Parts: sequence; C-alpha cells; structure tokens
Amino acid sequence: MITLHHCVSARSFRPLWLLEELGLPYSLRMLPFPPRALARQFLQDNPLGTVPLLVDGETRMTESAAMCQYLAARHSPGGLDVAVADPAYGAYLNWLHMGEATLTFPQTLVLRYSHFETVERRQPQVVEDYSRWFLARLRAVDTALQQQDFLCAGRFTAADVSVGYALLLAEHLGLQPQFTDAVRRYALRLQQRPAYQRALQLQHQSALDQGVPTIASPDVRPGA
Amino acid sequence: MITLHHCVSARSFRPLWLLEELGLPYSLRMLPFPPRALARQFLQDNPLGTVPLLVDGETRMTESAAMCQYLAARHSPGGLDVAVADPAYGAYLNWLHMGEATLTFPQTLVLRYSHFETVERRQPQVVEDYSRWFLARLRAVDTALQQQDFLCAGRFTAADVSVGYALLLAEHLGLQPQFTDAVRRYALRLQQRPAYQRALQLQHQSALDQGVPTIASPDVRPGA
Repeated sequence: MITLHHCVSARSFRPLWLLEELGLPYSLRMLPFPPRALARQFLQDNPLGTVPLLVDGETRMTESAAMCQYLAARHSPGGLDVAVADPAYGAYLNWLHMGEATLTFPQTLVLRYSHFETVERRQPQVVEDYSRWFLARLRAVDTALQQQDFLCAGRFTAADVSVGYALLLAEHLGLQPQFTDAVRRYALRLQQRPAYQRALQLQHQSALDQGVPTIASPDVRPGA
Repeated sequence: MITLHHCVSARSFRPLWLLEELGLPYSLRMLPFPPRALARQFLQDNPLGTVPLLVDGETRMTESAAMCQYLAARHSPGGLDVAVADPAYGAYLNWLHMGEATLTFPQTLVLRYSHFETVERRQPQVVEDYSRWFLARLRAVDTALQQQDFLCAGRFTAADVSVGYALLLAEHLGLQPQFTDAVRRYALRLQQRPAYQRALQLQHQSALDQGVPTIASPDVRPGA
C-alpha cells in the first residue's frame, strides 16, 4: 500500500494528483503546515520534516517531481510514463525536473519573503528578483505549447503534473496575469481534468476528516 | 553526436562528468559566464540563455540532473542507471532530483547574494537563510552514507553525479567545514574518480583552446 504524507496545496499535491490520475489505492495522511513545527511526531517518519513523504513498501521518497516519475514508471508504463526508447524521453525528463528545480523553487522565495517571514525579515528585492526569474523561464513552457496541447510525447504525461503544480502555485501568488495565452489555456486544461478536481476536493475533505487545521490565506504551502 | 554547451564549473559540469564516466564521444562547446550577457549568439541555440544545453540528435535538454538520468538510461543501461524494476529505483530518482532542486538551488542564492550582486543589492540575511537551509537538507546525505559508500543501489550511479556537483559547489562557497565526516569522505571519493579529474582538466583546457575567458574568483557559476 502506498502512503502519501501531504499538506494542503503543498508540493505533495503533485503525487496526490498523479495517484488520482492512475486510480491507484493509497492512504493519504494530512499534516498541518509546516509539519516540522506543528506535527513534531512526523520527524520520526521523515527526519527532514518536509512534505511530501511517499512510502511504497521499502521505497521512501521526499522529492515530489521524482515521485511523479516513479509512480508513472512503476504503475502505468506507457500510460503517463515515457519509455527510454521513445524520441520524447529526453524532453520528458527535462520537464519533470524543470517543473520543480526551475519553475517552483524560485516561487518559494517569493512566497517566503512576501508572506511567511515576519515583516522585518521580508525582502521585496528578492520577491521581485525571483518573480522575474520565474517568468523568464516560463517562456520555455509557452514555446513548447505553440505546437501541442501538452508538454511532450503528444499526450498528457507525468511531466505535465510536475509543471502543472508550478502554474497552480503561480496563480496563488498572483502571477497569472503575466501568463501568455498559451500558458493560461494550458493551466485551465490541466485544472479541468477530473483527477485534478478530485485531488483538490480530497485534500480539503481529508484535512477535515483527520482534524488537521488548514490556514486561510495564503492558501499555498509549497513544502520545504 | 552529442554536443554539450558548458561554462567552467557551472551545473553543466554534471553531464560533462557523466560523459567522461561513460566514455562517450561528444563535442564540448565552452561559453563565458553568463552566456546570456557575454555570448549573445548562444540565445539562438537556447532562448533561455542558460547552461547547460545538451543536444543529442532531435533531443534538446536544459536541466543538468535530467541529463544525468538521460545519458545513463540511454547509453549505459544497468551501468550508471538504475532500472525501473530495481528495488532502489525510487531512491535513485529521489537523489537525482534532490541533488539539484534541494541541494543546489539554495546555494545559488548564497552565491548570488554574496558574490554576484552589486554591493548595494547583496542580502546577508538570504545568504544566512539558505546556507542553513542547505546544511539542514544535507543531513539526508549523511544518513544515507552511514551504511554505504554511494547513495543508492550499492554502487556509483548517475545520482551520485547529481549530488556530487552540489558538494563541489558547497566547497567553492566555503561550506565544507560544516560537512560531517561521512559527507567529506564521500565528496573525496567522488573527486578522486578518474572521470571527475578528466572533466575538471578538460573544461579548463577547452576554455583555453576555444579562447573563452574564465573569471578568476569565485570559481563557481552554477548556471541560471
């Protein structure tokens, strides 16, 4: 049985969404954010104190984009995965990594230094630097979408889940007005998927069921 | 023929090192750093202006950790790769991603706001925040190395190249004194590999041969 440890709207939304796409059985454990401070017993499961944590038998993972590839390769070969011999394999790996390393991390700086830090520790310059940094890299997504509905292989893959979370985070941060039309339509296409909608509802219902407090605003907690 | 676009000591050192490990034929194109400003013609190859850029036939990649996985899977299956069915597959993917998203990106903030920015735009608080952030995550590497010489699968894999570059960058930034013994020994084990040594020499010799200026200090340019 797969167990996913998750905070509402954190990076762990990636594997949650993918698990719903795959229709796999799994157990969802909700945590308050940040778990390092508010759920100290979680440190026994993950000494780093970060979400996501995914446990599948002896396999333990903490990187959300890696989980997307893992679940797709192990549980839907040829479905949401792209095979090594496929001409799109390099592009698939590139988007999986880019979704997190290049398109999500810069946004966590924007979030941290505009919302989470105390007023005296906020850094407007860093917020501006990394908003621009993110939007400059987002041009690669726009370019890819000029010829196709999804990022690679001519179909929806785990790579779209990796990048799709970055776009969700950008919307929460108010960066959506700076999306190009192609990126805006792509984000909408992803968010209209039934599995995405189910994942959104499930995280809120599960937080309620498990008595886990969720904060009101900003409704974004990318994990650590 | 594989072509790698590279700046001395940038993230593109990962695929360079891996190409040397694999003994593949490739062409190395050196660029001054940052290429966006100093080698404008490079924007025709990569509109983002970032290194690395790896071109292999129709495949074009910009994420260095993804390149490691791509080269290992396409060009050394079962060698530096870990197969989907291997019990270590999840750990392998996790380390590939963690090497960049969790262990390298925070260091680029330290570098930017302590060295690259003009004095009035430097941010000592951010340098301190993300030095601590990096060192806290590095504990996961220390834990993994308590039982084994390499990160996963009981052998050297592309995942060690991903994390190994993060350790190289940390040494350039002066963070090495805060490594644990296990991490320090691991970094040394990686740096003593003949392919690592060849990659180090090659980048300097190629920069000289191609007339590409390299800056003196700090000798770190993680790419963009």
